[in-house]
Amino acid sequence: MLSQRIADLAGSPVRAMLATAQRPEVISFAGGLPAPDSFADLDLPAPPLEVLQYGPTEGEPALRARIAQDLAELGLDAPATRILILSGSQQGIDLAAKLFVDRGTRVAVEAPAYLAALQVFRFFGAALRSLDRADPGAAWIGEARPALAYVTPTFQNPSGHCWTTDERNALARACDAADVALFEDDPYRDLAYDACERGPICARLTRASWIYQGSFSKTVAPGLRIGFLAASADLFPHLVNLKQAADLHTNRLGQWYALRYLDDPNRAQRLSGLVNRYRRRRDLFAASMDRHLGGLADWEVPAGGLFFWATLKSGADTDELLQRARQRNVLFTPGEHFFAEKPDPSASMRLNFSHADEDSAERGLAILGELIRETAV
Amino acid sequence: MLSQRIADLAGSPVRAMLATAQRPEVISFAGGLPAPDSFADLDLPAPPLEVLQYGPTEGEPALRARIAQDLAELGLDAPATRILILSGSQQGIDLAAKLFVDRGTRVAVEAPAYLAALQVFRFFGAALRSLDRADPGAAWIGEARPALAYVTPTFQNPSGHCWTTDERNALARACDAADVALFEDDPYRDLAYDACERGPICARLTRASWIYQGSFSKTVAPGLRIGFLAASADLFPHLVNLKQAADLHTNRLGQWYALRYLDDPNRAQRLSGLVNRYRRRRDLFAASMDRHLGGLADWEVPAGGLFFWATLKSGADTDELLQRARQRNVLFTPGEHFFAEKPDPSASMRLNFSHADEDSAERGLAILGELIRETAV
Repeated sequence: MLSQRIADLAGSPVRAMLATAQRPEVISFAGGLPAPDSFADLDLPAPPLEVLQYGPTEGEPALRARIAQDLAELGLDAPATRILILSGSQQGIDLAAKLFVDRGTRVAVEAPAYLAALQVFRFFGAALRSLDRADPGAAWIGEARPALAYVTPTFQNPSGHCWTTDERNALARACDAADVALFEDDPYRDLAYDACERGPICARLTRASWIYQGSFSKTVAPGLRIGFLAASADLFPHLVNLKQAADLHTNRLGQWYALRYLDDPNRAQRLSGLVNRYRRRRDLFAASMDRHLGGLADWEVPAGGLFFWATLKSGADTDELLQRARQRNVLFTPGEHFFAEKPDPSASMRLNFSHADEDSAERGLAILGELIRETAV
Repeated sequence: MLSQRIADLAGSPVRAMLATAQRPEVISFAGGLPAPDSFADLDLPAPPLEVLQYGPTEGEPALRARIAQDLAELGLDAPATRILILSGSQQGIDLAAKLFVDRGTRVAVEAPAYLAALQVFRFFGAALRSLDRADPGAAWIGEARPALAYVTPTFQNPSGHCWTTDERNALARACDAADVALFEDDPYRDLAYDACERGPICARLTRASWIYQGSFSKTVAPGLRIGFLAASADLFPHLVNLKQAADLHTNRLGQWYALRYLDDPNRAQRLSGLVNRYRRRRDLFAASMDRHLGGLADWEVPAGGLFFWATLKSGADTDELLQRARQRNVLFTPGEHFFAEKPDPSASMRLNFSHADEDSAERGLAILGELIRETAV
């Protein structure tokens, strides 16, 4: 009686875990929640009554214009008329999947990739293919001929990786050559702790269709549920129609606050304060990782974003580790959920460093170290 | 390269028209916008900072509990644990379609039916069947065996019809007997100007699965984008997973305001003030209709909701009428968009009476009368 595709939709393991994560005794490295203190310098003044009426599907004109200015600085061909305000950037994934994916449509994704994107593409019946970032010239894309390639090139969730200039250029050339549409998800770009290439891949395309999306959840506040996308002229009108069918338009309260933060003369200063706080937290987390997981796991210190991606040297299953960690009130996200072609079990795990405070992080990582050593014995 | 289903998604004619409707010289009976003065007694105080963080997919616990109280009074078996807060009730249609509709799945709808629901069901590939409300015992449902029946029994958009007790009981019995899931959309129930049966059909089911949804767009403010659904226990967990994949959770600002309005000790008084204003507007509109369309069209005065549904006696095409009305700066929605099995052209039209003020309505209807007479000659 239910749709075929509903069989493909399991509840997200992360959502289930986040419910537990609310308990105060739990130290959570799962999820990707901003630090509570990152909101400390935000205020929420009373919004104007005009936001009560229905608004345009595309979003508030002033907000679209403001975002277009920012995107022009990144080299994207994205005028205000091709900006669509989203109810958070998760919605962009739903719209893109509706636009491209029939049962059996090939979609290329990273390995690992953002788990909630995998979930949505699978739900619409996509045949997921893992793309090989290291393949020189991205030759794989001409062979696999996906309809769509979905990537998070800057401080990726979960790996933390930031694509090099060469990797970015290669993917752009390959998409142009094979006429593969590119969907670039860029929610972490402003959380940059070390210098690295961040120029959008979409800005390097000359021919292929594209969707570029961003979020205010990481730099302003996720509770507003405000994201945006820009798209090439052939795709944009479809995305507006899909948005209208999905929820008519994005809530106008959040749009009003988002514009206010973007227009704030202290915006740059606020952001650099946030980046400094998160950089310090990353560094403390890295030191705790060294103390407690050194010799037990491999990882790279991420140049930005919110996550460490660590792989157990023993090759042990991190899902099994999570079962034991849970009993000690420590949570993280096992690696297996991030792979399109599941290496089930996975020895990798994603550790969020933005939410738990310094002391909790130290205690949580110490517990993980203990538990990993237990298995190794 | 795009999905098959995108071919089925035309832009909504209403959305295109609403863009024109923003011009001040235009008198719009299209759309279904609340009267601007209906917001006059609302305020938007500064919300608390806690709404900035991510929230639960299901929605704010306090809001869910408050809605559950209201639904219990309607006789629905809908505890707080089976309430899902939506980003407006349009989203409920998207989620229900995802849950039930594969290409070719039969979905029963009214004739006429809410156009944006037809659009979404079609987009997911539904084979739409018009249900016959007048069929005693709703025998058609046992024959057509749809997977889902979608109805707006109370002050329907566009017809304004309110199902009788017998009609409601018959549909409930037929769904139970044939095990057809019922999706009851109930955004207008509080806009009741005359006494009539409003008890939910879902409350009469004993066996069939169901989704019941409501909205705060008509009685509070659409710009908040807050709606909700309740569902039978077999469907609810799927709907939560679908909601998470669609946009993680509904914006918390709007949820905070919605709860505040529901908890307002003056809530009942506010609502009755709104109903009185709209009743007066309906009555004035009905008088204008008599003056200008009397003898030219047939209609019933709706007992609630926001729309008159009028059918030209001449049988002339209302889409053609709209082309001429547009040049005189008058808009309405032609009937053809509201039918699953299109009687294209249609002699019917939907006229919204909540948005235009009294003088504009009088002028607009006078122009429509003139234009209809022109064709008749």
